[in-house]
Amino acid sequence: MIWFTEYWTDNVGLTVKATEVKRIKSKYQEILVLETPEFGKMLVLDGLVQTTERDEFIYHEMLAHPAMVMHPSPERVLIIGGGDGGTVREVLKHSTVKEVHLCEIDEEVILVAEKYFPTIAGKLRDEKVKIFIEDGNEFLSERKNYYDVIIMDSSDPVGASQVLFSEEFYKKVKDSLRKDGIMVAQTESPVLQEKYFSQAYSQIRKVFRNVGVYLAYVPTYPSGMWSFTIASDYIDVNSTSHHPERVKELKTKYFCDSIYACLFALPQFVQDILKKS
Amino acid sequence: MIWFTEYWTDNVGLTVKATEVKRIKSKYQEILVLETPEFGKMLVLDGLVQTTERDEFIYHEMLAHPAMVMHPSPERVLIIGGGDGGTVREVLKHSTVKEVHLCEIDEEVILVAEKYFPTIAGKLRDEKVKIFIEDGNEFLSERKNYYDVIIMDSSDPVGASQVLFSEEFYKKVKDSLRKDGIMVAQTESPVLQEKYFSQAYSQIRKVFRNVGVYLAYVPTYPSGMWSFTIASDYIDVNSTSHHPERVKELKTKYFCDSIYACLFALPQFVQDILKKS
Repeated sequence: MIWFTEYWTDNVGLTVKATEVKRIKSKYQEILVLETPEFGKMLVLDGLVQTTERDEFIYHEMLAHPAMVMHPSPERVLIIGGGDGGTVREVLKHSTVKEVHLCEIDEEVILVAEKYFPTIAGKLRDEKVKIFIEDGNEFLSERKNYYDVIIMDSSDPVGASQVLFSEEFYKKVKDSLRKDGIMVAQTESPVLQEKYFSQAYSQIRKVFRNVGVYLAYVPTYPSGMWSFTIASDYIDVNSTSHHPERVKELKTKYFCDSIYACLFALPQFVQDILKKS
Repeated sequence: MIWFTEYWTDNVGLTVKATEVKRIKSKYQEILVLETPEFGKMLVLDGLVQTTERDEFIYHEMLAHPAMVMHPSPERVLIIGGGDGGTVREVLKHSTVKEVHLCEIDEEVILVAEKYFPTIAGKLRDEKVKIFIEDGNEFLSERKNYYDVIIMDSSDPVGASQVLFSEEFYKKVKDSLRKDGIMVAQTESPVLQEKYFSQAYSQIRKVFRNVGVYLAYVPTYPSGMWSFTIASDYIDVNSTSHHPERVKELKTKYFCDSIYACLFALPQFVQDILKKS
């Protein structure tokens, strides 16, 4: 029997039994596909769990839907990262959407997802979707005032992804959004990656007028408490009074009326981290 | 270096580095005290993490305060289990409290907590607190119509704790409560222990008129998503309009105004488990 451990820090990790391991070496990273009795297939990039068949719906729904629901009428959506296709799938649940651009640096992730994770990647070849195999940072420089929603579905801010957590990058995101556009980013665990969480919030606040932070339970991510930061100059992203009727139309397993209504309820210690960020 | 793994199921576990391990064998169980770089001291009973210095506040605050705040004036409180003393400490933050009974079957847990976890156990010898080294099930049979709040701070429903998740037991709890009394129990992880979670809810519903379920992020418990079930015949436990002003008076690090206001916001899949329970 194989036991795979993702080290969340130097001092704690999640240990998962696997019955089969496939190893693919791409230009950018080592990709593992584990067959696990607990979580189904699991996608691991450079040792870090990206998604599992069992709990992927939580992360993908909670990354995509709040921003999509808050925007008055999201037509053009950009996803940076997200090569597994889960966020694309959720975005396409919104009937207003006309085009989804996916900018993923590593084509191998897309190919692996399509081969091993069809329930996640199944919408990547939808006719509304256009895939760009490019660096997200460079991609943004060429698109100004275009998107309604930009979703940062990036991996952890180490190596190539580090720039995706900088003020300079968020400025590019803002420039690529239309005036009433909205962005959202996955921003790590407030418990085990407080530094990154706090940094993302403070950088995003330098760039956008309205910034909100919300959480979701993601059992296979460090500490199980995962954060998302949402921002807009135009939309008051700390209110959840925007189009609640659209939540009911979505077929979802985590995001729902009551989660939306209470999106910004944060534990005191998370509020305290934000205050001092 | 020592690595300790708590197996959450046969197929997944939390792995924690430890620099020191103390092993105490009590009449009922094996007690470990681990010194860990990530979570500080960690208390482990029969292989299961009970509490850690770093994140214990979350579980103890979220177990104690919602029921204490909802009750109009909690004076007499019973805690079943909870030998580490964390729940006692939180209950004593409510100024109405006149007596706290702690019924813990294993005295050794109390002694270990007082020796190694003074920040958690520090209020166990408070003059309002009376400790009973007894079986919780038998203890209840002798106290009728007495308590305002009963808190089940039990370990997982295996072995000796199994009876604490039965309809028969919840009936005894109800009989030991005053008419307007309220009970709350930790009821496991909806993700990794759905069976116990679902069972606790359905049994409690057979006994009490009003039943509510809420969650908290507990990083060192299975899946990180932990559930609590609260019940009363008299108090509408699904409303959080009861005495919100009392929340502000509490010195807490997790429980706060916004967490209380949104206490019963559950992800769709958790609502679905409850519906079919």
